[in-house]
Amino acid sequence: MIIVMEQGITQPEEVRVVEDLEKVGFTVHVMHGEARTVIAAIGDRKNIELRHLEALSGVEKVVPVLKPYKLASREFKKEDTVIKVGNTEIGGDKLTIMAGPCAVEEKEQFIETAHLLKKAGAGILRGGAFKPRSSPYSFQGLGEEGLKIMAEAREQTGLPIVTEIVDPKDVELVSSYADIMQVGARNMQNFILLKEVGKVNKPILLKRGLSATIEEWLMAAEYIMSEGNYNVILCERGIRTYETSTRNTLDLSAVPLIKKLSHLPIIVDPSHGTGKRDLVAPMAKAAIAAGADGLMIEAHIDPARALSDGPQSLTPDQFAALVGELKLISGFFNKSI
Amino acid sequence: MIIVMEQGITQPEEVRVVEDLEKVGFTVHVMHGEARTVIAAIGDRKNIELRHLEALSGVEKVVPVLKPYKLASREFKKEDTVIKVGNTEIGGDKLTIMAGPCAVEEKEQFIETAHLLKKAGAGILRGGAFKPRSSPYSFQGLGEEGLKIMAEAREQTGLPIVTEIVDPKDVELVSSYADIMQVGARNMQNFILLKEVGKVNKPILLKRGLSATIEEWLMAAEYIMSEGNYNVILCERGIRTYETSTRNTLDLSAVPLIKKLSHLPIIVDPSHGTGKRDLVAPMAKAAIAAGADGLMIEAHIDPARALSDGPQSLTPDQFAALVGELKLISGFFNKSI
Amino acid sequence: MIIVMEQGITQPEEVRVVEDLEKVGFTVHVMHGEARTVIAAIGDRKNIELRHLEALSGVEKVVPVLKPYKLASREFKKEDTVIKVGNTEIGGDKLTIMAGPCAVEEKEQFIETAHLLKKAGAGILRGGAFKPRSSPYSFQGLGEEGLKIMAEAREQTGLPIVTEIVDPKDVELVSSYADIMQVGARNMQNFILLKEVGKVNKPILLKRGLSATIEEWLMAAEYIMSEGNYNVILCERGIRTYETSTRNTLDLSAVPLIKKLSHLPIIVDPSHGTGKRDLVAPMAKAAIAAGADGLMIEAHIDPARALSDGPQSLTPDQFAALVGELKLISGFFNKSI
Amino acid sequence: MIIVMEQGITQPEEVRVVEDLEKVGFTVHVMHGEARTVIAAIGDRKNIELRHLEALSGVEKVVPVLKPYKLASREFKKEDTVIKVGNTEIGGDKLTIMAGPCAVEEKEQFIETAHLLKKAGAGILRGGAFKPRSSPYSFQGLGEEGLKIMAEAREQTGLPIVTEIVDPKDVELVSSYADIMQVGARNMQNFILLKEVGKVNKPILLKRGLSATIEEWLMAAEYIMSEGNYNVILCERGIRTYETSTRNTLDLSAVPLIKKLSHLPIIVDPSHGTGKRDLVAPMAKAAIAAGADGLMIEAHIDPARALSDGPQSLTPDQFAALVGELKLISGFFNKSI
Repeated sequence: MIIVMEQGITQPEEVRVVEDLEKVGFTVHVMHGEARTVIAAIGDRKNIELRHLEALSGVEKVVPVLKPYKLASREFKKEDTVIKVGNTEIGGDKLTIMAGPCAVEEKEQFIETAHLLKKAGAGILRGGAFKPRSSPYSFQGLGEEGLKIMAEAREQTGLPIVTEIVDPKDVELVSSYADIMQVGARNMQNFILLKEVGKVNKPILLKRGLSATIEEWLMAAEYIMSEGNYNVILCERGIRTYETSTRNTLDLSAVPLIKKLSHLPIIVDPSHGTGKRDLVAPMAKAAIAAGADGLMIEAHIDPARALSDGPQSLTPDQFAALVGELKLISGFFNKSI
Repeated sequence: MIIVMEQGITQPEEVRVVEDLEKVGFTVHVMHGEARTVIAAIGDRKNIELRHLEALSGVEKVVPVLKPYKLASREFKKEDTVIKVGNTEIGGDKLTIMAGPCAVEEKEQFIETAHLLKKAGAGILRGGAFKPRSSPYSFQGLGEEGLKIMAEAREQTGLPIVTEIVDPKDVELVSSYADIMQVGARNMQNFILLKEVGKVNKPILLKRGLSATIEEWLMAAEYIMSEGNYNVILCERGIRTYETSTRNTLDLSAVPLIKKLSHLPIIVDPSHGTGKRDLVAPMAKAAIAAGADGLMIEAHIDPARALSDGPQSLTPDQFAALVGELKLISGFFNKSI
Repeated sequence: MIIVMEQGITQPEEVRVVEDLEKVGFTVHVMHGEARTVIAAIGDRKNIELRHLEALSGVEKVVPVLKPYKLASREFKKEDTVIKVGNTEIGGDKLTIMAGPCAVEEKEQFIETAHLLKKAGAGILRGGAFKPRSSPYSFQGLGEEGLKIMAEAREQTGLPIVTEIVDPKDVELVSSYADIMQVGARNMQNFILLKEVGKVNKPILLKRGLSATIEEWLMAAEYIMSEGNYNVILCERGIRTYETSTRNTLDLSAVPLIKKLSHLPIIVDPSHGTGKRDLVAPMAKAAIAAGADGLMIEAHIDPARALSDGPQSLTPDQFAALVGELKLISGFFNKSI
Repeated sequence: MIIVMEQGITQPEEVRVVEDLEKVGFTVHVMHGEARTVIAAIGDRKNIELRHLEALSGVEKVVPVLKPYKLASREFKKEDTVIKVGNTEIGGDKLTIMAGPCAVEEKEQFIETAHLLKKAGAGILRGGAFKPRSSPYSFQGLGEEGLKIMAEAREQTGLPIVTEIVDPKDVELVSSYADIMQVGARNMQNFILLKEVGKVNKPILLKRGLSATIEEWLMAAEYIMSEGNYNVILCERGIRTYETSTRNTLDLSAVPLIKKLSHLPIIVDPSHGTGKRDLVAPMAKAAIAAGADGLMIEAHIDPARALSDGPQSLTPDQFAALVGELKLISGFFNKSI
């Protein structure tokens, strides 16, 4: 790492930085410029906290050379990670389409939706049983009852199911039903939850936090992987910016960037990413063109009846039309549905 | 609430919105303008989800008239809430100064720090036993051992202690040691944790999320209060913006705004809010001038030795000098330390 | 528009709002809810300033029903605007590819680049003669000499040229050379410049400001159009967010959103939008999939020799490869190059 | 500066970077770490463009060691700059209060306001004659007529006047009336305008851009200073963030940070910074506590009658009350009004 010293530092200040670095095994080079002294340190970043160095007297800034994540990095693993889910795969040359309502609300309706979505081309069924809602007075999900409904839908359609986990103590419960457990945007830095889902052998869909940097996101994946669970699927779902004409700002450049930095598969959620039904189809196509491994799309038999997120839900017909288009173009992007 | 319809809507679209509103008890007025139809609905916002209305065909946008929080609102309770902690109070005409290192690291050192800070004028002692760190490879805190050290420091100094809780299942453990439990910025929308700390009779310090709006922050307080725990202290600690020359952007306008919207006390953390030692004192004074009920300040015997957040920690001497200044000015802002 | 009054307003406060609205021709409906009074006003938004209403005693907020722009709106003009430039068109079913170096630096090199880019499939040639640079010590462009070089390149290749204008007094000069004049991101709200370019009969490429909302961007177009020049091409080039791993955050959702709100053509600049060469091709393809009418791409014979923005420039070979891919996929998005 | 190379670079890639640096006079040190090669270059940053280096093959990132601004920096000039305006001074131990309506609207009213504000304690009179408005249909100011009214108010009250300049060709006109010329937030990177106002010998009030970093802001000051005009006063007026409950987010930490980085005086505009009358007084006091050299406050005889920015304007009485409080506290912050 590189330590830039403040102007006019004293000899003891320089010495202390050098000593602290050498003490934990770094090889140190000191360069005295006209205006500043710069110290380069070669060694294992994990041996020292950057903020410790920044706290030393006379230090202006510390610039890391290496990334703070390892297991999640492309340098650690060159080939794309492909994750098995039921009879299907996520990553590689597969284009995975996850679809379903935001929340599981009622059995008949959910199962009917599942059949329609399967027919329309969905590969994985989504639905929420535990819903993190910004108001304590909003519908919070059906809980285990919702998980049972999803399992029934899987039995009837053969589609694997993905559902959100919000409470660390529910890992056993949720993983006994779900094929993929989702960690939502608001929990991306709930480290207790990350560690818990890192201990099971079940794919984890890790949504990007509302204001998470790419690096923080990969560090959240690293949390899961450092516990032993390497089956992490990243999901870009829009970030918070000053722009209010969309619910979030869908950051599609995250897709090729993640592909460069990491071997993990990445999918895109244009429903939450835009918050507007009209924008879902164009942004779904754009996501594929940007190189995404799949999509997560909200679809509901009657969006206006949805207890959550209706405005961004497609009807099954709209969803089927979109999948039709995606099938036509996916080949151009080296993917098959 | 107000529902603005899209241009050129059909009669059935208008009728459905009206019916859905009337069905749940709203009184509805329809206004046909030249360009748009606008529907005003008077009734209890909790009876319907805004996003449900937005999902209805023909609806362009829904504008709520009332705030979504109730218990946390100034309308619900006119007088300032004052919270008892040990022999002291937070809110009202008291200026509370919480100080201590980011993390409890070592017993002798922590207790020595506690004595120094008490002497310098701290009213409450802070320290982290469970640390949410963005890297799984960083120091994660001493756990219960850290809580015991804090309790020992309290016994010796008489200062109440505030410490962070990160795991919902630790509520009993942490509340058996702490005088105030802190919910950190990354957990501000960890609704499971909010509900759990809402069930105990212990003051909760609720930090603002990294990219939380004022409304989301008050809704997080509402989560805690809706479970029965009304002892919520808000803490502004900087928000995430495009500006990188400070660690966060300390939003001091949140202080008078919260005072207007809510009866809850609000304190400011200029240490995390700026991330830079040099900025802590000026921003601490600015916070008091803006009307804050207190401060949370990181102080460490040897900031460069701190395992966490050294660059923003004051030395006990720097802290004492700041408290000296605060004592001089607090009277002008109708506060006493 | 809708005026939401504060809780507990007085009769005179209500009366004044109603009178002020009726005085300028609004039809007013007053609704008294239990908690709040809401006033709906139907009429021409241009007759009153929203901020005037907000300034009245007792007013909590004012919610506009209609958009503030007119000439730029889809409601004003249903059909897509198609803009003639030389022998080519921008908008409709055309996919326009503008390419060239960020700055015109040297004659031979620029003309050689122009020939290569034409051969590779560029439809319009870009280049900067007047460069807005954040440092006064950086290369500021060749000025009129640069315009002459561009004109020579046009003569030799037949490609129309687009170049930035930064000084209102240069409108005549720049428009005597350029086929399209570009208003850069930093000048999007330079209203003097907008009015000046609104007075000439020459297509204007209007880049989105670094932190401009969609509405502000369309209002900037409205400035140009309100002076009589309807030939405005919008260009999304990334917005400023907290994320620093890309130079800007390319907001592709702006494309379908602009298509819905406006009749103006919109193109995308993935070079400035990402700042990284590796991300240009995937984001260019994503832009087309999102519905863009074209692209603006930086290309340079020797990016490392570029005096400006080398890291995001493609080589002519990389550019040719990208155009080859775009030709294959454009048909699926109802566009032809 | 420090150049971090990508993993696995070739020998020629390393050589080219070194050669390019040495060619323009840098002394270069190459460090080969296990994972990366890092190149440190000591020399004059102005001799090379950072983005040129980033564009070289094999370069991952370039980290500058020195600041890009010179004349504006504290390193260039240790003592605080104090600027003479009429009989008064800005900077040093003076607390300057600029006040007035957003726009000059009508002669009698403006002059009456001027007398009231002077009596209340204003030191400088503000008013807008040329208004940059986001809508072409909004009131654009009275132009030269407005300047004449301001000059008349100065004659009657003795208060110096500050007013905005928006058109580079108006420098002579505006400077013939104004004591201070203001460059507004939207023009902070209008480099043509910056250069023009850099050529006159008149203090310039430079507002921070809506999404300008501290560094970009100081670079804008550098533009003015590099033309010879060293009389630059910085003005923090809020930045654009995701938070919508205030008009902007007033970044008061900019005050102590600018004091550290630069010798230029800095004032704060809590009116635009918050957009809400209720927040102006607390944030004005907070600004002084943070170390600001002054304030710019909107005040209007009848805010509801203001053609621009009424909701954030104080009445003369409210303004007088605020100045009374400021007089009481300013001594504690080593300032006198």
